[in-house]
Amino acid sequence: MFLTRTEYDRGVNTFSPEGRLFQVEYAIEAIKLGSTAIGLKTKDGVVLAVEKRVTSPLLEPSSVEKIMEIDEHLGCAMSGLIADARTLVEHARVETQNHRFSYGEPMTVESATQAICDLALRFGEGDEESMSRPFGVSLLIAGHDENGPSLYYTDPSGTFWQCNAKAIGSGSEGADSSLQEQYNKELTLQEAETIALSILKQVMEEKVTPNNVDIAKVAPNYHLYTPSEVEAVIARL
Amino acid sequence: MFLTRTEYDRGVNTFSPEGRLFQVEYAIEAIKLGSTAIGLKTKDGVVLAVEKRVTSPLLEPSSVEKIMEIDEHLGCAMSGLIADARTLVEHARVETQNHRFSYGEPMTVESATQAICDLALRFGEGDEESMSRPFGVSLLIAGHDENGPSLYYTDPSGTFWQCNAKAIGSGSEGADSSLQEQYNKELTLQEAETIALSILKQVMEEKVTPNNVDIAKVAPNYHLYTPSEVEAVIARL
Amino acid sequence: MFLTRTEYDRGVNTFSPEGRLFQVEYAIEAIKLGSTAIGLKTKDGVVLAVEKRVTSPLLEPSSVEKIMEIDEHLGCAMSGLIADARTLVEHARVETQNHRFSYGEPMTVESATQAICDLALRFGEGDEESMSRPFGVSLLIAGHDENGPSLYYTDPSGTFWQCNAKAIGSGSEGADSSLQEQYNKELTLQEAETIALSILKQVMEEKVTPNNVDIAKVAPNYHLYTPSEVEAVIARL
Amino acid sequence: MFLTRTEYDRGVNTFSPEGRLFQVEYAIEAIKLGSTAIGLKTKDGVVLAVEKRVTSPLLEPSSVEKIMEIDEHLGCAMSGLIADARTLVEHARVETQNHRFSYGEPMTVESATQAICDLALRFGEGDEESMSRPFGVSLLIAGHDENGPSLYYTDPSGTFWQCNAKAIGSGSEGADSSLQEQYNKELTLQEAETIALSILKQVMEEKVTPNNVDIAKVAPNYHLYTPSEVEAVIARL
Amino acid sequence: MFLTRTEYDRGVNTFSPEGRLFQVEYAIEAIKLGSTAIGLKTKDGVVLAVEKRVTSPLLEPSSVEKIMEIDEHLGCAMSGLIADARTLVEHARVETQNHRFSYGEPMTVESATQAICDLALRFGEGDEESMSRPFGVSLLIAGHDENGPSLYYTDPSGTFWQCNAKAIGSGSEGADSSLQEQYNKELTLQEAETIALSILKQVMEEKVTPNNVDIAKVAPNYHLYTPSEVEAVIARL
Amino acid sequence: MFLTRTEYDRGVNTFSPEGRLFQVEYAIEAIKLGSTAIGLKTKDGVVLAVEKRVTSPLLEPSSVEKIMEIDEHLGCAMSGLIADARTLVEHARVETQNHRFSYGEPMTVESATQAICDLALRFGEGDEESMSRPFGVSLLIAGHDENGPSLYYTDPSGTFWQCNAKAIGSGSEGADSSLQEQYNKELTLQEAETIALSILKQVMEEKVTPNNVDIAKVAPNYHLYTPSEVEAVIARL
Amino acid sequence: MFLTRTEYDRGVNTFSPEGRLFQVEYAIEAIKLGSTAIGLKTKDGVVLAVEKRVTSPLLEPSSVEKIMEIDEHLGCAMSGLIADARTLVEHARVETQNHRFSYGEPMTVESATQAICDLALRFGEGDEESMSRPFGVSLLIAGHDENGPSLYYTDPSGTFWQCNAKAIGSGSEGADSSLQEQYNKELTLQEAETIALSILKQVMEEKVTPNNVDIAKVAPNYHLYTPSEVEAVIARL
Repeated sequence: MFLTRTEYDRGVNTFSPEGRLFQVEYAIEAIKLGSTAIGLKTKDGVVLAVEKRVTSPLLEPSSVEKIMEIDEHLGCAMSGLIADARTLVEHARVETQNHRFSYGEPMTVESATQAICDLALRFGEGDEESMSRPFGVSLLIAGHDENGPSLYYTDPSGTFWQCNAKAIGSGSEGADSSLQEQYNKELTLQEAETIALSILKQVMEEKVTPNNVDIAKVAPNYHLYTPSEVEAVIARL
Repeated sequence: MFLTRTEYDRGVNTFSPEGRLFQVEYAIEAIKLGSTAIGLKTKDGVVLAVEKRVTSPLLEPSSVEKIMEIDEHLGCAMSGLIADARTLVEHARVETQNHRFSYGEPMTVESATQAICDLALRFGEGDEESMSRPFGVSLLIAGHDENGPSLYYTDPSGTFWQCNAKAIGSGSEGADSSLQEQYNKELTLQEAETIALSILKQVMEEKVTPNNVDIAKVAPNYHLYTPSEVEAVIARL
Repeated sequence: MFLTRTEYDRGVNTFSPEGRLFQVEYAIEAIKLGSTAIGLKTKDGVVLAVEKRVTSPLLEPSSVEKIMEIDEHLGCAMSGLIADARTLVEHARVETQNHRFSYGEPMTVESATQAICDLALRFGEGDEESMSRPFGVSLLIAGHDENGPSLYYTDPSGTFWQCNAKAIGSGSEGADSSLQEQYNKELTLQEAETIALSILKQVMEEKVTPNNVDIAKVAPNYHLYTPSEVEAVIARL
Repeated sequence: MFLTRTEYDRGVNTFSPEGRLFQVEYAIEAIKLGSTAIGLKTKDGVVLAVEKRVTSPLLEPSSVEKIMEIDEHLGCAMSGLIADARTLVEHARVETQNHRFSYGEPMTVESATQAICDLALRFGEGDEESMSRPFGVSLLIAGHDENGPSLYYTDPSGTFWQCNAKAIGSGSEGADSSLQEQYNKELTLQEAETIALSILKQVMEEKVTPNNVDIAKVAPNYHLYTPSEVEAVIARL
Repeated sequence: MFLTRTEYDRGVNTFSPEGRLFQVEYAIEAIKLGSTAIGLKTKDGVVLAVEKRVTSPLLEPSSVEKIMEIDEHLGCAMSGLIADARTLVEHARVETQNHRFSYGEPMTVESATQAICDLALRFGEGDEESMSRPFGVSLLIAGHDENGPSLYYTDPSGTFWQCNAKAIGSGSEGADSSLQEQYNKELTLQEAETIALSILKQVMEEKVTPNNVDIAKVAPNYHLYTPSEVEAVIARL
Repeated sequence: MFLTRTEYDRGVNTFSPEGRLFQVEYAIEAIKLGSTAIGLKTKDGVVLAVEKRVTSPLLEPSSVEKIMEIDEHLGCAMSGLIADARTLVEHARVETQNHRFSYGEPMTVESATQAICDLALRFGEGDEESMSRPFGVSLLIAGHDENGPSLYYTDPSGTFWQCNAKAIGSGSEGADSSLQEQYNKELTLQEAETIALSILKQVMEEKVTPNNVDIAKVAPNYHLYTPSEVEAVIARL
Repeated sequence: MFLTRTEYDRGVNTFSPEGRLFQVEYAIEAIKLGSTAIGLKTKDGVVLAVEKRVTSPLLEPSSVEKIMEIDEHLGCAMSGLIADARTLVEHARVETQNHRFSYGEPMTVESATQAICDLALRFGEGDEESMSRPFGVSLLIAGHDENGPSLYYTDPSGTFWQCNAKAIGSGSEGADSSLQEQYNKELTLQEAETIALSILKQVMEEKVTPNNVDIAKVAPNYHLYTPSEVEAVIARL
């Protein structure tokens, strides 16, 4: 009997005979084509760092946004399809604002992550909010709530995990190994910045400059580094 | 005449000539890829134990949730697609809360299990709540109600059974044999904990630690063991 | 011209060139894989008996429900997909309760059977209540109303027949022959119990015990036999 | 160019290049598999007679309904899928009752026939009342209104014709020839009964008994013959 | 490159590479299989004549309706699928009645024709009133309004033309030639009747009788000829 | 790799690998099969002229409408599927009437053209007003508003252009060349009439008569020429 | 295994095994067939310049609109399918007007760009506003808000970037190289006009005239150059 993959992945959300969901696996491939992003949790806050692919000197580097604020206490780095990520972030912004409005307090980081994954999971369902295919993006969600700082990692299947440190995108394999070697829970925020950028530097094909990387922290509020703040971190490498 | 499987499983919810529903069978395959989970009912309560696959030392073990609370008197262990399980658990949480609110008493364990299976059965129906494919997850639902402790097992077809003991996931075959040898109705909760963990230990490829297993009991309330409580059970092996 | 079956059964509810509905025929195959169930009508009431496949000693036999109450005066035995049967039974329960509420009297057995078949017939129609495929289950519906006791048999096509005695499931062929030999209209309820169980015994591969068969009667009210009542029937064989 | 039938009948309701609707033609095949039914119009009323296939001695012959009342002045005999016929009859019952309620008089036979055909025609349209495939049934509709007795014949395409006499089902070809030889407009009701049953007898493979045929008349009200009334007609053959 | 027709006619309402709509063309084939119908406009009114195929002597000729009244001043003859024609006529009857009710005057012939074509054009659109395929019928619409008598011809594409004389159905080719030879604007109604029937006679395979043809006129009101009126026209041939 | 056209044009509104929309291109082919229409703008108004294919001497020439009024100050000539054009014109009539009612002034020519193209663009979208395929028609829209006379040309893709002169339909290629040679902005209306008809005459296979051409002008109001007015233009050739 | 592109691009919005979205890539091909458009940001405002393909001397050049106003402070140049661009521009006009109405101030350039991309991203979703395929158009959006002048570039995937200068359409490759050589941030508006037109001239196959190019600026309000203003820029080349 001649069973090929192509027979099973027509329906965007059906199982193959081995119990696999191919559209989700293909979406994960989309992320392997994306630029690298790194997150590290320290006791003082979370650091996010991303490679920006500025394909032309005429592009405004600041408009290549790979790190975005979700709420005052929440930000995320992304790898994959940027337009998809924007939809997820926009959804999370509405959810976190609604939460503040209804309950008078910020949403916890886990609840915000769950809200993003609920939307990601329901692709192919045909309802108002969902997409007809999986979201082709992974997020590193950094936040700070009553439990202190935390870092979450989401994938296109709508699953999420809490991490101490994590890399996503085309350079994630090498970056993850480096993180395992260099990470410990006693890192300061400054040390985490240095580690994140030095690992990014290894996986990037060009020289690191304030134009082709972005850094942000949530400690305890979200802050995207200015070019001179990025320059300062580069100087420490 | 050339009848291949591939001709019949395009529609997610149609019969093959032999009267089989392939998408459900493929979803069951998804569960055979999942981590092992074990449940045992004793006269004093139910014990659930799961293997957690923590793929990187940088993952927060507590965020790999394979046992979740449904209500004060209800919890479940899962094997298969975690994001799917979350949807079912969330559905059950709403149903049990509604029941408490409407009737002023907890939902029975069987009714809660039925509510989960109703949702699981209606995949491919295109209505608001259902999925476009079967839920790729099995649950062991532990609870305590006016009939005392009980343990239910659900599969992706929306069928459920009440059990004294049951294992699901990639190691379920060996684990079920061991359970049949070691189970009797007079077990104490402590003995059940020891049996569950010793069987998990057999099917896991790595050393058992508080990081890679979770234990919970419903006796009569749901309680997820702390790392030191898990450590204590490991010490008894 | 090369006309194969596979060309016609893609649409769940379309005719083949010979005027056949394959999805219905395939669903009937699903029932041939099911456990055997038997019903006998006597002048004093109806007896239902089913084989229960308890695949593991750790399963709670009472949770393998193959006979269910619909209303005080109505019950049914089933063969095929249990989750599908539950949906039909749940539908019938609502219909019979509504009838009692609206008209102050129990629904007749035929009306309740018709209500089940109306739902079964409309598979593939895409409306709220219907399934996207035929229901893969046959029912033996036993009841008692102003016309006395009656027994109905339904199949996945939504057709029903009134019977004096009927067997369904994997052993139905042999069981039906035995019923034709042994049935007569003057049987007492007790004789009917004995005949039902002795025929079940022939088609089952294992020893009959209160754990692997269930018996119920509607005479004139539904009653599911306790293990000791089943034991008493077994003793008479 | 290789044009096969299979290329055109996927859509349930589309034309083939020759201007044919295959699903309707296949549904007509379903009727050729059905049991034979005969109708004769006389100046005193209409007679309907059907073969009943009672596949087991344990089936209740009266529950194999092939002739059904629609309204006090309207009945029909059917051949093909019985569950489909029930849906059409139920629809006609509602329509005729609504008519009585709205206008205080019985619906004419033609209007009732048109109401059935309107529903039959709209298969595949996806609206609330219609089926996703043609109804696999033909009806002989007998009635009596201000124009006296009349007999209509409907097919799965939603077309209808008024007839003096007509046979449908597997034996219709031979039965129609016999009807043309024996029919004349001056027949009495009793002669019509005898002709109908003698023709049925020719096309049936077994001996005619009150168990395997049904007779009804509309003269001017619908009346289904009791077994002894059927016996009396058999005695006249 | 191998472009076959079959590749393009799956979608009921899509263009082929040559800019053709095959489902419409196939529906037009359905009409070529239909019985012949003829219409002639005179200064005194319009005459319609149709061949009726009465396939059995037991069929009531008057129930084979190929000419139908739409409104007091409007009638039509049809060729093709009769059930489809009934839907269009029913639609036109509702529209013309609504017009009378809303505006207190009869609808013009052109507006009524446009209303029929609007419905015919929208096949495959999935809305409430439309069909999922083209209507397989052509109509000759005869009417009389403030502009005097008029005759319209519609086809399955939803296009219509005003004519002095027109034939449709299987014999239309020969009939149209005869009409061009014999038609002139000064014909009396009686001459038009004779021409219509003499041409029908040429294309019919059997002898013309009041049983197998129907004649109607709109002059200025719709009138279907009685058998004796038809007999009188036959006598003049 | 074997990429054929047929692989891409199944979806009515999807891109081929080269970035083409085949259904739109096929619809444009439908127009090349249509009769020729010509429009010329002068400083005094716009002239439209069309070839009418009167396929039988029994057709009423005035019922072959290829030029239609949209509003008092707006008319259009068409080539392609006439039934499609009627839908677009009807839509435009409603829009222009609504505009007059809401704003108390006529709609501008460009706004009316845009309204037609909005409907044309949305084919395949499944909403209430749109078609499931492109509209197979091109329009020449002539109008007069506060900016003076103007002429627009629309195609099935929903695109439109303003022109001084334009020909569409089967003879458009030759006619467009002739227009470029003969057109200048100083033409009088009478000269434009003569040019339009002389070019039509070249592309038509038969003699030009008031029966097989139509002429209209918008100067500043829409006026369809009477047969004698057309005769007068013919006489000037 | 034989995986061809054709297997994956049937669903308009599904991933291929490599994680690609082919319909989006094919839509990008559509833009490569379009005319060239160029945008440059200066400190005083933004300049847009486009090639217009005026295929016939009888077309009104001003009706070939490739640059359109969105709001007083916002305009865009386009390349690809013009009818698609009109839909996006119309959507943006409504959004910006709503913003002014609700908040009493103009929308920022980024928000307006995001609103366009939100609509572009949701193709294939089946909701009211979205298309069933990607929008086959790229836009250069020029605007001026509280952050000064800005230039955005959007593609069919719904992604956008901020640029200093950018070319789109068939000549974009060569034009982008020239822009990188000639652009600097200190350009005056007049210098930007000259650069834009000189680059357009290189990629166009015909002589540059006020008829076949359009120029607009946002400085700080949108202004489309008159033919004589364009002539003045041409004179400076």
